[in-house]
Amino acid sequence: MRVYIVGIGPGSKEYLTLKAVETVKNADIVVGSKRALELFDIEEDKWYILSKNIVEDLKKVIEYAKKEKKSVVILSTGDPCFSGLLKTLLKYNIVNREDIEVIPGISSIQVAASKLKISWEDYHILTLHGKEENRKVLLDLIKDNKKVIFLPNKNLKEDIEYLIENGVDENKEIVICENLTYPKERIIECKLKEVLHLNLSYLVVCVVK
Amino acid sequence: MRVYIVGIGPGSKEYLTLKAVETVKNADIVVGSKRALELFDIEEDKWYILSKNIVEDLKKVIEYAKKEKKSVVILSTGDPCFSGLLKTLLKYNIVNREDIEVIPGISSIQVAASKLKISWEDYHILTLHGKEENRKVLLDLIKDNKKVIFLPNKNLKEDIEYLIENGVDENKEIVICENLTYPKERIIECKLKEVLHLNLSYLVVCVVK
Ligand SMILES: C[S@@+](CC[C@H](N)C(=O)[O-])C[C@H]1O[C@@H](n2cnc3c(N)ncnc32)[C@H](O)[C@@H]1O
Ligand SMILES: C[S@@+](CC[C@H](N)C(=O)[O-])C[C@H]1O[C@@H](n2cnc3c(N)ncnc32)[C@H](O)[C@@H]1O
Repeated sequence: MRVYIVGIGPGSKEYLTLKAVETVKNADIVVGSKRALELFDIEEDKWYILSKNIVEDLKKVIEYAKKEKKSVVILSTGDPCFSGLLKTLLKYNIVNREDIEVIPGISSIQVAASKLKISWEDYHILTLHGKEENRKVLLDLIKDNKKVIFLPNKNLKEDIEYLIENGVDENKEIVICENLTYPKERIIECKLKEVLHLNLSYLVVCVVK
Repeated sequence: MRVYIVGIGPGSKEYLTLKAVETVKNADIVVGSKRALELFDIEEDKWYILSKNIVEDLKKVIEYAKKEKKSVVILSTGDPCFSGLLKTLLKYNIVNREDIEVIPGISSIQVAASKLKISWEDYHILTLHGKEENRKVLLDLIKDNKKVIFLPNKNLKEDIEYLIENGVDENKEIVICENLTYPKERIIECKLKEVLHLNLSYLVVCVVK
């Protein structure tokens, strides 16, 4: 059995690779959020929409696909190898490592860099997503005046409060890249303390220069 | 005037994004290596093939485009924002920052991660390309038993010799990802000392787990 984990990029269809489009077209079953599935021109009877119970859902669909000898594509936002679904699949033993093929996608980190016209090899790249310990790493990097690009935890304001409470200057500049490639995209340059008053979606990449 | 810097991914056409294809189709002049230009289905009279004098060539073509009010696409391997052409354009003041639009591409770093099925948020990412000082950073990270993905200098063997001479165990494991997405792609898992006997192309990503 073959399971493809396909990166779909930041959200807008234009950021799909030709390989992603092709791989999805050839699959028997395509698993993902409704928003992700709608990016592709495929029949709805191939769709398997994920609920909040991602791990349970994935186990179910993989078991079914194994039994029926179907090929499966799992859609992953951005790049599956950056804070993405690859890790979940391996961590919970949902698929054997050898059965997986990963198709990379454009990460939200890269879109943020392209919008700000910065080179991300000059930045420390961090995700706080499910990585509690990285908050401290972020704090140390910022105190050390390093350049950082980071994905916040569920709640960016909590992360910012933590930074300020632990001695980072509340007037430090930050760039918030929200809803990248969507019609509601915003790039906000502001001070840390101002973030606490913003009304933000959960789709956010932060850049500290 | 608008100058698009378009990431073309690791080399195989499948890794182009739809946006890259579209942007190139709509451009008046498309600048790049012959290999890069051949990925796109466009008339050869739009081509501008770069010689070894990249900076001089870019200055020339941008000046011409400005005068003739033409739109220009500059093709960049991988992601333009990772050790890519964006930096060159800004460093040598070849284009005004405001006139640039960057279209991200799949980086060779991401392809390496996808092939090895690893998550790159767990790795330190480094390029030694034109960054001499990063050799020492690489040495310290490896001595510290950190996970690293790096692009070597022009000559990987020199980098490896430097590591061994400075106290890294010559039996340390490394993974060499060569010519990714090309027919001659190779993934070689070996010891540091064995790298010294390999015959490698310059298209190489290295992973130390
Ligand atoms: C579980 S992580 C997945 C990251 C993804 N694998 C990637 O490479 O971008 C989800 C987080 O990615 C970021 N993200 C994804 N898409 C985004 C977008 N279009 N705009 C801003 N941030 C985005 C947000 O921080 C979001 O909470
Ligand atoms: C000037 S850097 C450009 C990096 C590019 N912007 C990226 O994101 O991959 C050129 C280096 O990238 C790496 N590289 C680019 N394409 C590659 C491929 N197909 N396979 C292996 N390494 C590659 C090699 O280390 C090469 O020397």
